[in-house]
Amino acid sequence: MTVLAEVLSANAAYANEFGDKSALALPPARGFAILTCMDARLDPAKYAGLSEGDAHVIRNAGGRASDDAIRSLVISYKLLGTKEWFVIHHTNCGMEFFTDEVIRGLLANSLETAALGDAGFYEVGSGPGSTEGNYIDWLTITDQAASVLEDVARIKAHPLVPRGIPVYGYIYDVATGRLVEVPAATTAGAAA
Amino acid sequence: MTVLAEVLSANAAYANEFGDKSALALPPARGFAILTCMDARLDPAKYAGLSEGDAHVIRNAGGRASDDAIRSLVISYKLLGTKEWFVIHHTNCGMEFFTDEVIRGLLANSLETAALGDAGFYEVGSGPGSTEGNYIDWLTITDQAASVLEDVARIKAHPLVPRGIPVYGYIYDVATGRLVEVPAATTAGAAA
Repeated sequence: MTVLAEVLSANAAYANEFGDKSALALPPARGFAILTCMDARLDPAKYAGLSEGDAHVIRNAGGRASDDAIRSLVISYKLLGTKEWFVIHHTNCGMEFFTDEVIRGLLANSLETAALGDAGFYEVGSGPGSTEGNYIDWLTITDQAASVLEDVARIKAHPLVPRGIPVYGYIYDVATGRLVEVPAATTAGAAA
Repeated sequence: MTVLAEVLSANAAYANEFGDKSALALPPARGFAILTCMDARLDPAKYAGLSEGDAHVIRNAGGRASDDAIRSLVISYKLLGTKEWFVIHHTNCGMEFFTDEVIRGLLANSLETAALGDAGFYEVGSGPGSTEGNYIDWLTITDQAASVLEDVARIKAHPLVPRGIPVYGYIYDVATGRLVEVPAATTAGAAA
């Protein structure tokens, strides 16, 4: 079966058991939001115990506090009433294995998928490429605790974020499924 | 129990039943990515049948093809090998109930949470506000089919996206749990 057919088949099964979820309200029932990575191994609903309707989940490459993540967080509290936020990065993140220079070089050579080896990503295709990657900040990560701290600090300092909102900083361990606190981030985040 | 304690308690239970998920590979096993809304009622793993390790999930307010979502999608295929993508907006989206002008006005008056009434969002707090919202494009939505089509088209036209990648456009119905195709988007997306 193709991916599309598989997704639609899984969706039909989900809809058939949808039950009373049609009654869920638009604002998150439990009043919080999670910003985390798009990584396929992460399921925030499972690792944080969310049911449909509970919380906003914002995901991008790295779980970074990009301008777009902050747009989403501001909408989350200003219009939909979330009152506390989590920033959750994770171990073995793809964002640790390259730099702006590396991805820009790879994209300039070819748009096709590169491979990951012991020395990082390497090119397997050739052309057509694009230098458009030079104009994007890829928000790579060198140290997970530092990136969590940096992102919590950026969120807390944003002029559209109210001073008192708690922001908790955690790292999800893909080897164990456990959330591990980044104490400095949480301390800074919890302060009013 | 506080939200933080609840999340950590749910996470401990998840980690205790983690099993062999520590063996999951970094690249998505099923080779695709979903871009969808942060809405609390949506659980992409459930509505699309994803297990941990299967697919990248990118989420923001509206499920829009923002620059940051495109950053994530490009990383998803260029470095981690996804070969097809879904853009999934949904009915009763919060992004339909305001405009740039509305949220800018609300934020200028107060950073605290507004309320949603029959006539849209209205202010319940007062000060301190910020005019910083004037510098953000909030990517609001007036018509879901049009926003899906627009976002699929933006992704397809991006200079860092290979020409042949299929992009499927769908609307998730929060009343039924069903994915409903936006035919024009999928047709455009599937074309090489």
